[in-house]
Amino acid sequence: MTLSTWAPVPADSEFGVANLPYGVFSRGEERPRVGVRIGNNALDLAPLLARDHEIPVQGPGGGLAEAVAAESLDALLAAGPQAWKSLREWVTGLLTDPAKESEASPHLVPLADVRMHMPFTVADYVDFYSSEHHAANVGKMFRPDAPPLLPNWKHLPVGYHGRAGTVVVSGTEIIRPCGQRKAPDESAPTFGPSRRLDIEAEVGFVIGGANRLGEPVPASAFADYVFGVALVNDWSARDIQNWEYVPLGPFLGKSFATSISAWITPLAALEQARVQPPKRTHDLLDYLADDPDQPWGLDLTLEVDWNGTVVSRPPFASMYWTAAQQLAHMTVNGATVRPGDLYASGTVSGTEVHERGSFLELSWSGSEPVRLADGSLRTFLEDGDTVTLRASAPGPDGVRIGLGEVTGQIRPARC
Amino acid sequence: MTLSTWAPVPADSEFGVANLPYGVFSRGEERPRVGVRIGNNALDLAPLLARDHEIPVQGPGGGLAEAVAAESLDALLAAGPQAWKSLREWVTGLLTDPAKESEASPHLVPLADVRMHMPFTVADYVDFYSSEHHAANVGKMFRPDAPPLLPNWKHLPVGYHGRAGTVVVSGTEIIRPCGQRKAPDESAPTFGPSRRLDIEAEVGFVIGGANRLGEPVPASAFADYVFGVALVNDWSARDIQNWEYVPLGPFLGKSFATSISAWITPLAALEQARVQPPKRTHDLLDYLADDPDQPWGLDLTLEVDWNGTVVSRPPFASMYWTAAQQLAHMTVNGATVRPGDLYASGTVSGTEVHERGSFLELSWSGSEPVRLADGSLRTFLEDGDTVTLRASAPGPDGVRIGLGEVTGQIRPARC
Repeated sequence: MTLSTWAPVPADSEFGVANLPYGVFSRGEERPRVGVRIGNNALDLAPLLARDHEIPVQGPGGGLAEAVAAESLDALLAAGPQAWKSLREWVTGLLTDPAKESEASPHLVPLADVRMHMPFTVADYVDFYSSEHHAANVGKMFRPDAPPLLPNWKHLPVGYHGRAGTVVVSGTEIIRPCGQRKAPDESAPTFGPSRRLDIEAEVGFVIGGANRLGEPVPASAFADYVFGVALVNDWSARDIQNWEYVPLGPFLGKSFATSISAWITPLAALEQARVQPPKRTHDLLDYLADDPDQPWGLDLTLEVDWNGTVVSRPPFASMYWTAAQQLAHMTVNGATVRPGDLYASGTVSGTEVHERGSFLELSWSGSEPVRLADGSLRTFLEDGDTVTLRASAPGPDGVRIGLGEVTGQIRPARC
Repeated sequence: MTLSTWAPVPADSEFGVANLPYGVFSRGEERPRVGVRIGNNALDLAPLLARDHEIPVQGPGGGLAEAVAAESLDALLAAGPQAWKSLREWVTGLLTDPAKESEASPHLVPLADVRMHMPFTVADYVDFYSSEHHAANVGKMFRPDAPPLLPNWKHLPVGYHGRAGTVVVSGTEIIRPCGQRKAPDESAPTFGPSRRLDIEAEVGFVIGGANRLGEPVPASAFADYVFGVALVNDWSARDIQNWEYVPLGPFLGKSFATSISAWITPLAALEQARVQPPKRTHDLLDYLADDPDQPWGLDLTLEVDWNGTVVSRPPFASMYWTAAQQLAHMTVNGATVRPGDLYASGTVSGTEVHERGSFLELSWSGSEPVRLADGSLRTFLEDGDTVTLRASAPGPDGVRIGLGEVTGQIRPARC
């Protein structure tokens, strides 16, 4: 049965009642609060939930009404999967019950009138590297005489920790980073603005659960720990990264900024997007085994927009490692996860040129410029350029579920 | 002039009135609170500061009395360098003024009666790799046919992000991690407990300041941003690390646990420990340039105790990169730091065998077992082993400044 809502939702909207992502918004000088997006409005939850006596579940450390009255999603993340389910059912009920319209409609706020804020406090940020096509492209460019994938790649989801403190919300300006870079033909590094500033189109997973030190989270518990999904642009200064990353991995080439979408799509809204991951070419160790009855491949279609030209449409369903496997791997050594942890998929690239999720790959390390709609040619980012990532997923009854967007404009370096 | 205190301090104590580290303690069922260590007591600050009307400086978001009444050092870290200075002067005045004894002495709590807690909430955790001797030892073991140092090593302080959520306080048991490991002669990885569990003896720097995105912190501002120093044991599963770390760096081989000392030594207590760093063999880029008038090499002597045998005394003064250079590097791309950020030096190893700060080096990758006082031989850690790191520094008038200890015992794997 298709649910219908009394709230205004344009016919082609990807933000109908089957979606209902969460974000943090403010209007004018008011303080930020938690909202749910429906169509082109944010529903202000706190005043409605506070007066509704029917919502039964309480999260730890206070009720749901308290959690949504906060200036971030932090308390809602910590409230856990039963609370997420109750809240989603309550919001869905509110928006689909015609009798609630008069009470609730005054709390719809046009998105055009609001400012969006960083939706939650990032605890730890991990970035994976789980697209086979991306990893192979990088291998072919940088190690042309070796096999494109390194020996560990098909055995475990390679990943590393990034900087949590520089994860910023969509719309934040990105200042071109300065740093050390050395071309292979230079004898010593020089200091200056990055000359190879790039994007990475990724999908991020926002954790709300917490395990105990020494107790891994099995892949089967994925939905109990993951609140929802964000779009991620992992801005990358390739020249800085290239000089610094051996042997301990990327550091300043990444840590200047990572942008995430303002709206977090609940995992429950992506039920129809679940697909089997790609066929495995190697046996997997037990803790990474696929469960064909509970697949966590996700059929999300991404879109990379460079100054108004869509230059790529990376298919997330092609990712070799699923987010459930990434979570199991990340904790198999006994490491804890906490509410607010964010982990990203790694650059999403498909098999085709127009499915590549980084400009490094799209321009083949700068050797094949990309033509934009205005006729200009690009290899890496120029000052003033704007990149917007969008994504959507199949929903119930043929509707699309929008994952919003993450956008950022490049500002000149300050060195 | 040597300051003397009315508080009981044993003659050989490294915790006299020139030291005064901060920590978070509790007694019985009481809630944790901020204390200062003097001799073998913790001075309970909150009740004393609350009634003292003379302390002038207020930190942001509340006064110092409020900050020390909290269950962590978080608010004190955020209060900034003027507040740190005022508080240290006030505590020093209290402990050296005989007229204050009757008021303050009831608030001395024997350390034997207290439990120590994680002193602050770790925001981002970065681990550097700044000992030339350690990096060269690792290079000789793993790349015997290549130069021991990689090309970037003398140009920048190599570092990477670690897991903030698994930084634990001294005394926390360390569960042997499980994970994938593959010896070079094996065709595929296997899963199981780490067989090469190691330590890394390091010194950590705790940040209290915050910069704005895009505005680097110069090395000269080091003391405005760094509150104090902790001892760090960066537990490392070498077999897991070795299989996973190419190309994105260490991940699960490190993220299961990192232990820090319970007492944070104020930077101001280490004024007499400041020394020139080692002679530079390469020109440094401007942002990393040494200022001979304001050196931030630190003459700390570390001690590695393995089941009661001191197996190594790593000299921190031999570190090639200083903590001021590390901070400048970490932010030169515009990345922010925040109160609660922790960055560690990397394994401290000197030139001599008995100065090596990891068992990987002490046992030369397991080929030269270490003999303990009970006659037993060790290469890597066995279940039940306890490792304790200690350190001290020169203080005024020949006294030593103790940096406390960080200890942990290995518990069996759970896989």
